[in-house]
Amino acid sequence: MKAAILERYDEALTSEQFVRYTDVEDPRIDGPNDVIVRIGGAGVCRTDLHIVEGIWRSKVEVRLPYIMGHENAGWVEAIGRGVEGVKVGDAVVCHPLVTSGHCLACRRGDDMHATDSKFPGINANGGYAQYLLTGERALIKLPKSLTPKDVAPYTDAGLTAYRATKKASRHLLPGQYAVVIGAGGLGHIGIQVLNALCAAEIIAIDRADAGLALAKECGAHHQVKADGNEVAAIMELTGGNGAEAVIDFVGEGDAIARGLAMTRNGGYYYIVGYGGKIEIPTIDMITSEKTIVGNLVGTYPELVELMALADRGLVNLVTREYPLEQANQALHDLHHGRIKGRAVLVP
Amino acid sequence: MKAAILERYDEALTSEQFVRYTDVEDPRIDGPNDVIVRIGGAGVCRTDLHIVEGIWRSKVEVRLPYIMGHENAGWVEAIGRGVEGVKVGDAVVCHPLVTSGHCLACRRGDDMHATDSKFPGINANGGYAQYLLTGERALIKLPKSLTPKDVAPYTDAGLTAYRATKKASRHLLPGQYAVVIGAGGLGHIGIQVLNALCAAEIIAIDRADAGLALAKECGAHHQVKADGNEVAAIMELTGGNGAEAVIDFVGEGDAIARGLAMTRNGGYYYIVGYGGKIEIPTIDMITSEKTIVGNLVGTYPELVELMALADRGLVNLVTREYPLEQANQALHDLHHGRIKGRAVLVP
Amino acid sequence: MKAAILERYDEALTSEQFVRYTDVEDPRIDGPNDVIVRIGGAGVCRTDLHIVEGIWRSKVEVRLPYIMGHENAGWVEAIGRGVEGVKVGDAVVCHPLVTSGHCLACRRGDDMHATDSKFPGINANGGYAQYLLTGERALIKLPKSLTPKDVAPYTDAGLTAYRATKKASRHLLPGQYAVVIGAGGLGHIGIQVLNALCAAEIIAIDRADAGLALAKECGAHHQVKADGNEVAAIMELTGGNGAEAVIDFVGEGDAIARGLAMTRNGGYYYIVGYGGKIEIPTIDMITSEKTIVGNLVGTYPELVELMALADRGLVNLVTREYPLEQANQALHDLHHGRIKGRAVLVP
Amino acid sequence: MKAAILERYDEALTSEQFVRYTDVEDPRIDGPNDVIVRIGGAGVCRTDLHIVEGIWRSKVEVRLPYIMGHENAGWVEAIGRGVEGVKVGDAVVCHPLVTSGHCLACRRGDDMHATDSKFPGINANGGYAQYLLTGERALIKLPKSLTPKDVAPYTDAGLTAYRATKKASRHLLPGQYAVVIGAGGLGHIGIQVLNALCAAEIIAIDRADAGLALAKECGAHHQVKADGNEVAAIMELTGGNGAEAVIDFVGEGDAIARGLAMTRNGGYYYIVGYGGKIEIPTIDMITSEKTIVGNLVGTYPELVELMALADRGLVNLVTREYPLEQANQALHDLHHGRIKGRAVLVP
Repeated sequence: MKAAILERYDEALTSEQFVRYTDVEDPRIDGPNDVIVRIGGAGVCRTDLHIVEGIWRSKVEVRLPYIMGHENAGWVEAIGRGVEGVKVGDAVVCHPLVTSGHCLACRRGDDMHATDSKFPGINANGGYAQYLLTGERALIKLPKSLTPKDVAPYTDAGLTAYRATKKASRHLLPGQYAVVIGAGGLGHIGIQVLNALCAAEIIAIDRADAGLALAKECGAHHQVKADGNEVAAIMELTGGNGAEAVIDFVGEGDAIARGLAMTRNGGYYYIVGYGGKIEIPTIDMITSEKTIVGNLVGTYPELVELMALADRGLVNLVTREYPLEQANQALHDLHHGRIKGRAVLVP
Repeated sequence: MKAAILERYDEALTSEQFVRYTDVEDPRIDGPNDVIVRIGGAGVCRTDLHIVEGIWRSKVEVRLPYIMGHENAGWVEAIGRGVEGVKVGDAVVCHPLVTSGHCLACRRGDDMHATDSKFPGINANGGYAQYLLTGERALIKLPKSLTPKDVAPYTDAGLTAYRATKKASRHLLPGQYAVVIGAGGLGHIGIQVLNALCAAEIIAIDRADAGLALAKECGAHHQVKADGNEVAAIMELTGGNGAEAVIDFVGEGDAIARGLAMTRNGGYYYIVGYGGKIEIPTIDMITSEKTIVGNLVGTYPELVELMALADRGLVNLVTREYPLEQANQALHDLHHGRIKGRAVLVP
Repeated sequence: MKAAILERYDEALTSEQFVRYTDVEDPRIDGPNDVIVRIGGAGVCRTDLHIVEGIWRSKVEVRLPYIMGHENAGWVEAIGRGVEGVKVGDAVVCHPLVTSGHCLACRRGDDMHATDSKFPGINANGGYAQYLLTGERALIKLPKSLTPKDVAPYTDAGLTAYRATKKASRHLLPGQYAVVIGAGGLGHIGIQVLNALCAAEIIAIDRADAGLALAKECGAHHQVKADGNEVAAIMELTGGNGAEAVIDFVGEGDAIARGLAMTRNGGYYYIVGYGGKIEIPTIDMITSEKTIVGNLVGTYPELVELMALADRGLVNLVTREYPLEQANQALHDLHHGRIKGRAVLVP
Repeated sequence: MKAAILERYDEALTSEQFVRYTDVEDPRIDGPNDVIVRIGGAGVCRTDLHIVEGIWRSKVEVRLPYIMGHENAGWVEAIGRGVEGVKVGDAVVCHPLVTSGHCLACRRGDDMHATDSKFPGINANGGYAQYLLTGERALIKLPKSLTPKDVAPYTDAGLTAYRATKKASRHLLPGQYAVVIGAGGLGHIGIQVLNALCAAEIIAIDRADAGLALAKECGAHHQVKADGNEVAAIMELTGGNGAEAVIDFVGEGDAIARGLAMTRNGGYYYIVGYGGKIEIPTIDMITSEKTIVGNLVGTYPELVELMALADRGLVNLVTREYPLEQANQALHDLHHGRIKGRAVLVP
């Protein structure tokens, strides 16, 4: 099959050739619960750039060359003998983790904390390809309203944004404020999820005017430019108190310290983006009684919930399609901040 | 001052003279935290009809004649020496309970379970009058967007609907269903609150076409006629499972048994309306693991939250004004199901 | 193999021959995840008496003759080809439900609300026998501190008591009260679980002195005789307020109305036992803002939690052993209230 | 009256004269809700040392000289005209914050986040004295089982430990682990609270053998020496996973990084002690999905809960008494780690 493979790391992302479009062997059904999906779309994620930079090298075991692409949707192409939940031809979206379902975390519904799992595109071959090997437990059948290439980025970008903002929505009350830092691929979904799940007033922060415009389209009630004065701007909008929830989709540079500073006493700072470092004196955590919440991708049931939102039109993904052979162009555009919403590779 | 006073009970509600419009003594500031409010509007509530029927006689201590009216808003007319939070002339909405704030329930934020409280209009003189005696702790200042006569019914009808639907919103996930039984004064607010606080699909049930039309206006996604087949209709809409939350604003007649029957296993039946009786074999509670939740009026902070929703236009009250001297007409119209939304008396 | 089979219903429980001890065919491994367990102990449950009475006939599909016994533990005797989590010879305790793990309820961790499941002893052959057919997902390996016949009753009686009291422990604060109605097979476990999971003061109610003595042994701080004056007794113990949680393991006769009456305003009445009927006017639910909670058996992870408590000695089962051929004696003794704690059949 | 006053900061804590025992003016009733308490005991807290060091100078407004002592209990000596909840002679324990109860945080039960409050001993004169000026809303009447000097340290050390461990107890399940870092004045209470409120296995870490011995007395199931290998020790005890909750009463030096490292994925690190700095790359927060929780002193209702635990003997304070004139000796002993449990000054 055709695939775009990663052959070497490039810390500085200077290359114009992050991946190479070439022929590779087809995946094969091995276990009874294996499923092969014909890719309809594979989302391009900032994490892919971080993988190229080698940031993940120490976190996961993967040997190059391999195929990136952890946001996948398509049609069932082949199934193992034990598969009962889907049949060949079904349109499906792929939860990013493939689990057995036996560990206690899975039994409690926290499948993304499974003790044993595969994460195609991160620690196994992913979806920058024509076909993907995954498992029955990862698949959700699509309603007719949704097509694979339009929903692929929900599986990681969307699902991570969903999980973080859903956590925030559980404590956000009418009259309270939620700040979304970064109105990009994740942020623009997060804003819509917040609006669907609670009645907090939403303030979006972004460096780019295009980001702020997208935030407004997505339902942010206020837009604040990230120009160095954003803490003061948030304080003014929130009556001098700060926001009860700050969801940081940037997670590097000044965003972190500022995000923490604009969080109200007793409030929650949700960290989703990464690359930077949290640094805060313990006395400031104590006197403010703030909480800092790390956020991973969501669970399988949370992806079901997100698809229900998408099916009803309560969340809409802004995507830009690239043919699979132009994967480098997509990565390049993402790296240079030229993508509104989310890029999707279509084989 | 002028007031509409209740002089005798009328079990059958046959009278055209529920209350009498007459002159009574003005209320007086007594304690340091007392506040007198000049009434801008007083909501007319089904509970007022139940009071006339004598249903509440055994529940609260009140001697006739007295003044009904427990949904009040207006302007501060006079304040006790210790009052610091409001000043004469402020537009205010009145939380229905007047509490001292000292008991453990109040200290935990559950002021409507205060061990010691007054409930003007229920167990003390209420707002079917020109002036009302209340306390500082009951008052919330209105934003400029809102006027007393437009918001008065929020203080009980709205606040009770808010509390019940807020509880439901805490567990309702995207892809799940909420049924609202009764799209009247409370129900039409409940539908809007649900839409503001969660992404459940909302199904309204009402006996009257006008109620179903109002439900649709308020954002109910499905409307079901209460014609005896509503359980089957809900089962069909919910894929045979029933709804994760049923909020029953009727609470009498068939509504109760049907409401319980259309609640999904593991789901919640919220009882708000009253007059009837819950009857269910324990084995059915066990095998279904349903929960039945009683609902009182909300807390002071919850009224603050509801006013935030109203201020932002996320909840809108449908009201019909009557001059105070036509209180009997309003009660009469309510009794005969001729009020869309909520009646308000204006002195 | 040997088994005690149910051949006909007996509404009045007049028979001395509820079941018949005889030879039946051995169970066989059929699917890849099937497991056959050699029974070490099978708990005898009031539900078994209710099955004999025919109460469950309309709730589940089962054809007589069949084998009762839904509280099972033993050793793995044989496994299907796909089983990886246990091996032949392992000592195991059996969660009562056998599920596939694919439905949304299972994915959320609520496996006892699975859309598709088997309940051996209720709707399939159970453990009043030498061997039991179950599934891999139902099995938990026992730590060395625990032996099958000593823990069998945890799987339903214990797990149901655990689930209900765990729910209560989530809201019970120091200074608050929990009433346990019925200190029998479930109640005596519930008392211990409450003591392990929260610091509420525990009041046990029972008709029998032996029950009250067992309750005291298990850590109940107060014992109240169920002699008709129990509501008054609870009111006195709780300063006139009632208890924040009432857990009713009886669920029939006067227990229900009294249990509701002794529940504090804003409190929770947990119904576990069955046979009777809940009857309460909606106005009483509204003014008191009580919640009535139905309780099913717990989830697989909850059984893991309960076994952790047992392993550490925080919960101890009082059991009385009977050889399998004396199953009728055990049922008879249970019916006549002569069992302290829980009866267990040992093949 | 006699008091021990702070006259100047001493960053290095080199002085043997932190405070001076001398005569000062008596406090006076000013507002209607003021109360003067005759001090029965005033706890000596590490925060007092931090105040002397000047750490709090930038956090609160206070002018020297002033009286430290924020953990107070005693007897009501005089009351303002509006005080109804206590009378002269009542034995009382003082919640550390004096609030009006009017702000939204108070109305929600979060009084320690009041927008307007006084904190005697921190930003107003405290209890290192014969008399203390406080407010009615801060007072809890003591049951006869408890005397002021024995319970004074509950009001801050105890209440802070209670709040943090109560938060942890809400998610700790049987079979899970809680690590308590630092078995000193707060930690030894935290261990007892955990045992009262949940069934997690408790592991105490301390540098000193005396601390570990105290931890064992208080009910810690495992004791680990803080010798640089504590992360490895916790990993071994927890099956390689880390603990679901880590409660850090040290909050400086290596404790922080090690505390975070020994927190299980998906787990919670509660920070209570202070002096150091949290530093963690955002990628580590994301992949581990850990949560970092800041902890302030508890609310008034939480102090009521803690007194209920103390009254029932479920929590016991280890205290060492010093006469008020020996305040310097107490501060000195605390500074040099020579206090087991908690020092209390008695006028």
